Amino acid sequence: MQNYHMSPEQFRKEGKKVIDWIADYYEHIEKYPVLSQVEPGDIKATLPESAPQKGESLDEMIKDIDEKIMPGITHWQSPNFYAYFPANTSFPAILGDLISSGLGVQGMIWATSPAATELETRVLDWLAEMMGMPEKFKSTSTGGGVIQDTASTSALTAIIAARERATKFQSNKKGNQQKLVAYISTQTHSSIEKAIKIAGIGTDNMRLIDVDEKFAMRTDLLKTQIQKDKKEGFTPFFICAALGTTSSNAIDPIKEIGEICEAEKCWFHIDAAMSGTAMLCPEFRHFQNGVELADSYCFNPHKWMFTNFDCDVFWVANREELINTFSILPEYLRNKATESGEVFDYRDWHIQLGRRFRSLKLWFVIRHYGVEGLQYHIRKHVEISRKFTSWVHESDDFDIFVEPPLNLVCFRHKAGDDFNMKLMNTVNETGKTYFTHTKLNGEIVLRMSIGQTNTEEKHVKATWNLIQKKAEELLNNKI
Amino acid sequence: MQNYHMSPEQFRKEGKKVIDWIADYYEHIEKYPVLSQVEPGDIKATLPESAPQKGESLDEMIKDIDEKIMPGITHWQSPNFYAYFPANTSFPAILGDLISSGLGVQGMIWATSPAATELETRVLDWLAEMMGMPEKFKSTSTGGGVIQDTASTSALTAIIAARERATKFQSNKKGNQQKLVAYISTQTHSSIEKAIKIAGIGTDNMRLIDVDEKFAMRTDLLKTQIQKDKKEGFTPFFICAALGTTSSNAIDPIKEIGEICEAEKCWFHIDAAMSGTAMLCPEFRHFQNGVELADSYCFNPHKWMFTNFDCDVFWVANREELINTFSILPEYLRNKATESGEVFDYRDWHIQLGRRFRSLKLWFVIRHYGVEGLQYHIRKHVEISRKFTSWVHESDDFDIFVEPPLNLVCFRHKAGDDFNMKLMNTVNETGKTYFTHTKLNGEIVLRMSIGQTNTEEKHVKATWNLIQKKAEELLNNKI
Repeated sequence: MQNYHMSPEQFRKEGKKVIDWIADYYEHIEKYPVLSQVEPGDIKATLPESAPQKGESLDEMIKDIDEKIMPGITHWQSPNFYAYFPANTSFPAILGDLISSGLGVQGMIWATSPAATELETRVLDWLAEMMGMPEKFKSTSTGGGVIQDTASTSALTAIIAARERATKFQSNKKGNQQKLVAYISTQTHSSIEKAIKIAGIGTDNMRLIDVDEKFAMRTDLLKTQIQKDKKEGFTPFFICAALGTTSSNAIDPIKEIGEICEAEKCWFHIDAAMSGTAMLCPEFRHFQNGVELADSYCFNPHKWMFTNFDCDVFWVANREELINTFSILPEYLRNKATESGEVFDYRDWHIQLGRRFRSLKLWFVIRHYGVEGLQYHIRKHVEISRKFTSWVHESDDFDIFVEPPLNLVCFRHKAGDDFNMKLMNTVNETGKTYFTHTKLNGEIVLRMSIGQTNTEEKHVKATWNLIQKKAEELLNNKI
Repeated sequence: MQNYHMSPEQFRKEGKKVIDWIADYYEHIEKYPVLSQVEPGDIKATLPESAPQKGESLDEMIKDIDEKIMPGITHWQSPNFYAYFPANTSFPAILGDLISSGLGVQGMIWATSPAATELETRVLDWLAEMMGMPEKFKSTSTGGGVIQDTASTSALTAIIAARERATKFQSNKKGNQQKLVAYISTQTHSSIEKAIKIAGIGTDNMRLIDVDEKFAMRTDLLKTQIQKDKKEGFTPFFICAALGTTSSNAIDPIKEIGEICEAEKCWFHIDAAMSGTAMLCPEFRHFQNGVELADSYCFNPHKWMFTNFDCDVFWVANREELINTFSILPEYLRNKATESGEVFDYRDWHIQLGRRFRSLKLWFVIRHYGVEGLQYHIRKHVEISRKFTSWVHESDDFDIFVEPPLNLVCFRHKAGDDFNMKLMNTVNETGKTYFTHTKLNGEIVLRMSIGQTNTEEKHVKATWNLIQKKAEELLNNKI
């Protein structure tokens, strides 16, 4: 290793070891405690305080992963992972991403790798069709899609474009001077609040609209609030609807909110981070009736569509508004293709300049599963969730907190908040399963979020049995 | 394939094919034209208009990559790539990233995978030590590092934290109300301008300070401008210094700017996106004398440190300021570790919530090369750049536009702007090499950015010979 590089020959050997390591991991993933059991500082304490002067072998690194890193891993790819939202993946996604790492190209503008731009455009048009999206979201119409890292970034991108549009494209130049006001529900994801801060709007200018008994935004209150704000000299500019809130998977009334946006000239963003994937199945599309009124829409194939992080799909109805907001063209990036106007330069569709070739993994996933394979798995997860819901309904000790529309089940033991927290921690500490909680109407609620790639009914059944068993033991003071 | 998934056994087989495909690619990379020769729409036209209903095999996908995607690839990993800045990678990085894809964990908070947080903290402390950074940038002191996707995002993060500090942590709440003003040089990267727009500051409130004959910021003009702004009721809040501008690799006077920041209570951000890597070698650290005055600093291992995109390192001197700016804590993310205060939750150090386990690839790179291996390659690239500079100096037809401090050489044929553009396009169209241009003092300048992992003197020599040959042919009207 005269020049310190790993040679292609060595890479063939080491790479195959890593492939086997990953296959082994998935074959034995159920042996690990789902939730890492380490204490703060445990992992760091095993790692040297300084970098090595001389190079080390890959075998040493893999050994350290096994011994030092694995104890600190919470296994998001375990079929027994039901916490938060899924961040599922699949082998085809991993291989698509591997090729992206290998090619190591930058797709910031068309010219820096035309295939990276054109594959992304095509695959996102595929997806729009697969999900029954309005024509205007396609690149062949006025809009188009772009892959962002996360739904947080998509929300921020939408808010900045909305801010610009509302100020007649002056806020980028003059800063935020108008009294702009944004609307979300009390259940909207925290990323919108974060984006409102970043965009210089300020949370004082963000209205939290209360929700109905299903935790969906109340449009009567939305309307009232907008009228009040307008009277006080504010300019409503942005409304976000959730297609599946994080706490309870509540679905805001898309059509009604869209009509209000249209009347009030507000930017209408739909955050479908997890549940958007369900739109692959025609029978779930009624949840987004009115989607044709949206200015932007995002969902994360890296949550429920078997595509490893990061991969958030962000569609806009009018790409010119987006490009006018984010476009930059320093001399060192000038090129013939950009000047021809015939290409998309995706750096102008988001915040970052540099960008990875992320459409490869999405392309691999869609082609490996086909539309029917993806539908099969989404339907299966929803079906399992319905079974879990029925088991809870049948139980004397637990209640379903709100009927689940899709794959997130909110339930609760009748013995109160403290008991539920204790129950959750007790079950999670077994390492056999991992689920998390939220608060709804001020009460602690347990969440089973069912969407990991390999989750089958038997896994959910085992978790339900374990939850019941631990609840009984806790009630009987056996633990 | 009853359930549509790829089985671990199949993954072993297919994964090894992909590893071989990547090794083959690097063995034959010099056979491809460095700059893709396709026209807008060429790649898209080869791709079906709709997604397949039924799944396809990995062999079909690889075949499509070879036949449909590769013609649209610009080969950033070719040793003959000298365009823009490098985005180099290495086999250890690719393998570290592969393991990250395989594990598929979310590192948004400590609890969601403690190892992802603690390895990142430790490796960035290693790097701080390796680069002679001030103690305050370490997690063991008041600061710490976090991996961001790009230097664009780091700049935005720094600007938001600066805005919050300058408004006594009121801008997140009230929006941007104060007359804040930021300072950059005329040579500063376009990402800062983009971030100023996003943050709601507005480009009207961003001052472009002129540069000296080496294209470094003139601190006399900076001081004058600040005094003028203060008289007019503005509050200076943010100054960015470049350690290596994009056009010409100019290095702003870090110490002088730092002292001005200190006196004026401005946030001092250093953007060392490419050139920061050179700080691995003690002999180049004089370029950042005064770094101890910085509030934040970023550099990209995904540019010149053999780590595949994305991997931008962002250090802050005072992590509390950062966390106070970006912290969110919805109920569904509450957990014991966060409440204990003993852990870092990196979601509070940046814009996104979700985050990939990116420190793995950085750890692999540092351990594979060791400090000495990294230094060896940085020194080699600088040495090759110096040789290229001397060849240009020796030529009668070309000039060095400004003496290069490190690995970016700005040069120009004496025959004027149009000729230089024509020469560049003619050379790039051969497919044997790829370099780009910029404008300095209104003149077209050619850039040789030398930093690809496998670039050796022979590659640069061949490019120089080709440039000279094509220049002669163009002058003699042979082409």
